[in-house]
Amino acid sequence: MTTTVALDCMGGDHGPQEAVRGAAALSLKRQDIRLILVGDAPILSDLLDDCAYNPAQLSIEHAGEWVEQHEKPREALKAKPNASILVACRSVAEGRAQSIVTAGSTGAAILAADFCLGRIPGVHRAALAAVTPTELSHGPREDPFALLLDVGATLHATAEDLVTFAVMGSAYASAISGNDNPRLALLSNGTEPEKGPAEVVEAHKLLVGMESLNFVGNVEGLDIPRGTVDVVVTSGFLGNVVLKMVEGIGEVISDLASDAYARKFLWRLGLTMLSSGLKEIESVMDWESYGGAPILGFRHPVLKAHGRSRSRALGNACKVAAKAARSDMVRVVEDSLAALPETIGS
Amino acid sequence: MTTTVALDCMGGDHGPQEAVRGAAALSLKRQDIRLILVGDAPILSDLLDDCAYNPAQLSIEHAGEWVEQHEKPREALKAKPNASILVACRSVAEGRAQSIVTAGSTGAAILAADFCLGRIPGVHRAALAAVTPTELSHGPREDPFALLLDVGATLHATAEDLVTFAVMGSAYASAISGNDNPRLALLSNGTEPEKGPAEVVEAHKLLVGMESLNFVGNVEGLDIPRGTVDVVVTSGFLGNVVLKMVEGIGEVISDLASDAYARKFLWRLGLTMLSSGLKEIESVMDWESYGGAPILGFRHPVLKAHGRSRSRALGNACKVAAKAARSDMVRVVEDSLAALPETIGS
Repeated sequence: MTTTVALDCMGGDHGPQEAVRGAAALSLKRQDIRLILVGDAPILSDLLDDCAYNPAQLSIEHAGEWVEQHEKPREALKAKPNASILVACRSVAEGRAQSIVTAGSTGAAILAADFCLGRIPGVHRAALAAVTPTELSHGPREDPFALLLDVGATLHATAEDLVTFAVMGSAYASAISGNDNPRLALLSNGTEPEKGPAEVVEAHKLLVGMESLNFVGNVEGLDIPRGTVDVVVTSGFLGNVVLKMVEGIGEVISDLASDAYARKFLWRLGLTMLSSGLKEIESVMDWESYGGAPILGFRHPVLKAHGRSRSRALGNACKVAAKAARSDMVRVVEDSLAALPETIGS
Repeated sequence: MTTTVALDCMGGDHGPQEAVRGAAALSLKRQDIRLILVGDAPILSDLLDDCAYNPAQLSIEHAGEWVEQHEKPREALKAKPNASILVACRSVAEGRAQSIVTAGSTGAAILAADFCLGRIPGVHRAALAAVTPTELSHGPREDPFALLLDVGATLHATAEDLVTFAVMGSAYASAISGNDNPRLALLSNGTEPEKGPAEVVEAHKLLVGMESLNFVGNVEGLDIPRGTVDVVVTSGFLGNVVLKMVEGIGEVISDLASDAYARKFLWRLGLTMLSSGLKEIESVMDWESYGGAPILGFRHPVLKAHGRSRSRALGNACKVAAKAARSDMVRVVEDSLAALPETIGS
């Protein structure tokens, strides 16, 4: 089965060349993934001429404008009806592709997906999920990563939103990691069911009753670096602050490394710290291998790659997007939400 | 000037002997600090007999019962009117001591202080502040620590609460670190003033107008390990989750250390990571030196030492409590809140 991924080539920190190079390399390796390169056609075509690639696996779709990182997403999309992220989303809406990858503005990607793709029935709010490195490993492949969501698609979350995030995060973890029964928890200030603000306490009650989920209860902040569970659910405000802490730790380590030996050692070690063990330094240093952060809740998968992604990370994001498109994730989310009491998922 | 600290000797993880030993050692070193040891008098007296101490600096005040960590604070205090934390707070309320140190239940300490001491005029909610290790240093002594509050005294915070926390955190940082003009920020999901939930945006507006504070705006999660500012203000729910992440990182490092060399090196390095540089390994490893987490908002200082504190940490907490009692922190907080618009601090 061939899956087509629409790759928004514009808006990343390093320009379209990284996207084009990543796509070209992937086209030579994976006959089962077709790629639509979305962006300024003359530029993309020129860049492609400099690469080895398989023309059967690649095509270009023109988008003469794009959303810059500093622009306000809503205004930018209004002003630029042919922005690359909109063209990419339309290619999926019109059936030419099955999923989307972008390294551009997160806000623009969420809005464009909302305009063009629509949400899964029962989903009121999309969520941005992040893959965070952990000490303990996860799933049959022993990935040293867990999924944290929402990390900032929306600030507030009701109990119903948190339940929806749990269903979506669990379905995504299953689809991508091959972990049939991912362990799922709510982030709170204590493990007891009554700990946390009202929406967390209420979500806890609802999740306990959902047999399709492997809900293990509340976890605390220290469980994030440790990796006690596979999927951690929280509101976008808290999730965003926590994610930026995880990212900040790596930067702190590298700053502290003041001479060459220390730099090398500290940097390796700092990443190890969050890994599944000393033996896995290499795989954990390899942040680029996990590809991107899924935006969950739409009828088709959208992968947000980091703005500073290079070609390899973007190629990996396309692989993950293809895998997500082939899974039955969307149906699983829809079915799970349909099975909920009437006040939710309606 | 002599200051008297009421030291609640019961309720710590390692029993009253650590408190008694810490107090005995301090009595030989500091003629300016008197200590009232609060707890089971026969037990404390026996323990004291085994220590070298200066009897002029120490006395015992009997409390035959105490709150256990597993008890619900409110119920426990009702059932135990002579619990050690209540006796310690009463000794301050009645003028025999000027501040309190406890390694017992945080919830019980907050409630007991609320019953016995009363809040500073203008303060609606007390806050628990934590000292977190940072890469950048702070104040004239270049402490590799910053203050984070609230970390869980209450879950929710209104804009007014956040402003109160800012005033209190700033006053405490001044009093303890000798930093006259501590840099202060709100924790949010972006540095722009309009970022964050409504209460954070509103608090931002109010803080901008307060000339007595050195408010620098919003900071993000990554600024906590980095230490961009001296005082970080947030709600108790978010602060608690974030604090437990910081604590968790150290534990993850030590778990990962699988052989003796690695254990030593990783552990040192893990703490270094959060320090002000490679040269300060020793001072940063010295977690016990900062003594305790202040509970702010009451008419007299209350220091919550970690449950697992040993004698040295408890002795240091008594020094910090004495220093806070001598400062004009309470007056500064009262004056700052009185200067606010009428809707706040009233």
